[in-house]
Amino acid sequence: MEPVNIGLLGLGTVGGGTVTVLTRNAVEIARRAGRGIRITHAAARSYDAERIEGLGEIARIGEDAFAVVDDPDVDIVVELIGGYSPARELVLRAIANGKHVVTANKALIALHGNEIFAAAQARGVTVAFEAAVAGGIPIIKALREGLAGNHIEWIAGIINGTGNFILTEMRDRGRDFADVLAEAQALGYAEADPTFDVEGIDAAHKLTILGSLAFGIPLQFDKTFTEGIGAIQAQDVAYAGALGYRIKHLGIARRAADGIELRVHPTLIPHRRLIANVDGVMNAVLVKGDAVGPTLYYGAGAGALPTASAVVADVVDVARVLTTDPTNRVPHLAFQPTELVDTPVLAIENVETAYYLRLTALDRPGVMAGIAGILGEEGISIEAIQQKEPAPGETHVPLIMLTHRVRESCMNRALARIEASGAVQGETVRIRMETLAG
Amino acid sequence: MEPVNIGLLGLGTVGGGTVTVLTRNAVEIARRAGRGIRITHAAARSYDAERIEGLGEIARIGEDAFAVVDDPDVDIVVELIGGYSPARELVLRAIANGKHVVTANKALIALHGNEIFAAAQARGVTVAFEAAVAGGIPIIKALREGLAGNHIEWIAGIINGTGNFILTEMRDRGRDFADVLAEAQALGYAEADPTFDVEGIDAAHKLTILGSLAFGIPLQFDKTFTEGIGAIQAQDVAYAGALGYRIKHLGIARRAADGIELRVHPTLIPHRRLIANVDGVMNAVLVKGDAVGPTLYYGAGAGALPTASAVVADVVDVARVLTTDPTNRVPHLAFQPTELVDTPVLAIENVETAYYLRLTALDRPGVMAGIAGILGEEGISIEAIQQKEPAPGETHVPLIMLTHRVRESCMNRALARIEASGAVQGETVRIRMETLAG
Repeated sequence: MEPVNIGLLGLGTVGGGTVTVLTRNAVEIARRAGRGIRITHAAARSYDAERIEGLGEIARIGEDAFAVVDDPDVDIVVELIGGYSPARELVLRAIANGKHVVTANKALIALHGNEIFAAAQARGVTVAFEAAVAGGIPIIKALREGLAGNHIEWIAGIINGTGNFILTEMRDRGRDFADVLAEAQALGYAEADPTFDVEGIDAAHKLTILGSLAFGIPLQFDKTFTEGIGAIQAQDVAYAGALGYRIKHLGIARRAADGIELRVHPTLIPHRRLIANVDGVMNAVLVKGDAVGPTLYYGAGAGALPTASAVVADVVDVARVLTTDPTNRVPHLAFQPTELVDTPVLAIENVETAYYLRLTALDRPGVMAGIAGILGEEGISIEAIQQKEPAPGETHVPLIMLTHRVRESCMNRALARIEASGAVQGETVRIRMETLAG
Repeated sequence: MEPVNIGLLGLGTVGGGTVTVLTRNAVEIARRAGRGIRITHAAARSYDAERIEGLGEIARIGEDAFAVVDDPDVDIVVELIGGYSPARELVLRAIANGKHVVTANKALIALHGNEIFAAAQARGVTVAFEAAVAGGIPIIKALREGLAGNHIEWIAGIINGTGNFILTEMRDRGRDFADVLAEAQALGYAEADPTFDVEGIDAAHKLTILGSLAFGIPLQFDKTFTEGIGAIQAQDVAYAGALGYRIKHLGIARRAADGIELRVHPTLIPHRRLIANVDGVMNAVLVKGDAVGPTLYYGAGAGALPTASAVVADVVDVARVLTTDPTNRVPHLAFQPTELVDTPVLAIENVETAYYLRLTALDRPGVMAGIAGILGEEGISIEAIQQKEPAPGETHVPLIMLTHRVRESCMNRALARIEASGAVQGETVRIRMETLAG
């Protein structure tokens, strides 16, 4: 068979990695795909030619990305520029030109995926995006195909390596957030502007995609609740550890009785869970299906070669469907486009979770009973309570509580009452808690 | 689109589970597949009609499996009888009849897969076997498609749940093998005849399949080295634990410089590895690709519904290719049939591993030096050595050693010399050791 011609947009970290993997493993990839795969046209505004193994094999490298998507010899466009624009325009034009697309762009898919998939569907082409979630881990393939027989109940994933690195360092060395972040930036694990990672936006992009694949709902990034790790303190990491929990920044998608939960936030999880032991920059996604039970997928969530691994897997997949009837392909969002349903995404106030609470309570008889009383009145049952020793001369002591599951709006009301009661000072620390069981 | 008609062979554990999953999740599966999937004809010699949810939906249930594979209305034959015969004849006849096949039969694929895939290839049909390895974990899809861009370096898997349950119980409770095996049989985790599980044959079937998928070699069950867990003693589990290791029964497939390693045996691995923490009946497969790095896939490796999850995923996959051109499908063994290579599988004597050794050594000055001397002469370097306290009145003491990597034939020679030297009594315990790093 004729080789497949790739048009590559972007020669940065992932673009360079893709060139390297396609070059280094060319023979083995062709043995699998049944045909050669070669980059015939690439575009990048700038790149480091010395650093990219295999760059010399590319017949044509220019600066004009639109020239690549308009190139009649290109079969598959691989978009590795990132960001919203011009990535969106390029992908839509590639589709209009009848080309298949492979992208690693989670932001683009999370925000513009509905539009892009509709266009692809209408034109009979495929847009593949395995690299958009959890780097090299084939989680999209697992959800979309490997678990196709299941009713998915929930997903919980460590899907941002930077955040997980920071939380791991905080735990292992008892260090503070700001301190570890600075080190992560120095090591290149965190961007100079760490907002997307630390505030959970990157994880929310990925969770939006996972939620759609799991539940057959349209992509709704704006409804995904997002809370970052910037407020996590070393003492809470330590208290959680002493109680047998670890704090992980999780993306959680769950079917509840009255809607879908899509939420990214720091979460206490039991330290014996496999996913609680996923440390450093590694990613892992835990998926609970009704038939299969819990399954976990672990690997590198970022980096040039791991992400390129997913890009190339998509290219091989797409190369296989080049000659197939579009109606028989795996649907973009796991469910047939006509079969997506509009199950509501729940506002965070309507989500039920257990909680870890740390209050700074007045060290006086009756105070703890008063706090417990308010919680009880709001329907919140306490699983464990610990009052720490007061520091010499301190009038207040840390009071740690673990609660059973409760609706967030009830917790909001209870904490407002407790804070207004004068029994505590400062703001209450609260971190959601999940058992990730059954 | 017309629904797909399934002909089901076998209504035992997995067959019953498959009926249940296809019934319970019928709507959701059709939303994914784009067409309904229904069992139109099933055959079983006996079955428990009360136990199988959805059995009433099957139009025709008989005793003649050949009538199912000859039924012109059946599109896909799902073989869940197990064993070699008549499963082999049924699958070959289904293929001859132009039907696609889905099977969970690891023994059949490991021993007769080459013949079956050649027949399927010639007839233009697909034989899918995700359920044959690691139950509900989509590991075959991950290896064959998700990691298609990688040069796979090695695989290490906990791929027999019974064996893992026994080793977990031995570790957690300090109990002996025979004791735990009896309990596993009582709980239904182990068969009345546990040979296939505890001697590693079941794991070897699965490893044979994984090795072919990873390295593009024909299936060669007869060359897969197999050692069971029956000789593992409680004291070795404890000594390994004290040294920071756990003993797991692993299937390991590895590319070495001079060939492929395919081996199933008890293995010491560092307790901090994620896979070392996979306990009870759960399975996990660790795959190291050159681009993606290490990835891990975890889930239930057996059971009615988890295995059915994999069967149904295969059915959905096959339903999608019903109308496609056979040359563009995913190849059975990941590589195109013309691209399989005959890389030799190494005899175990030529495999290099590190070792845990427990010798029962004469408690006399100079003995340890003599043993270390023999190891040194055979080119074996020692990483750690521990001499335990002698019991009162005992002339011999346990001597625990960890070695660096060495070719098995050298270790055989060294141990024969040590045993002949009179410095030790009884047989030396040796367990292979892997770091599973990089």
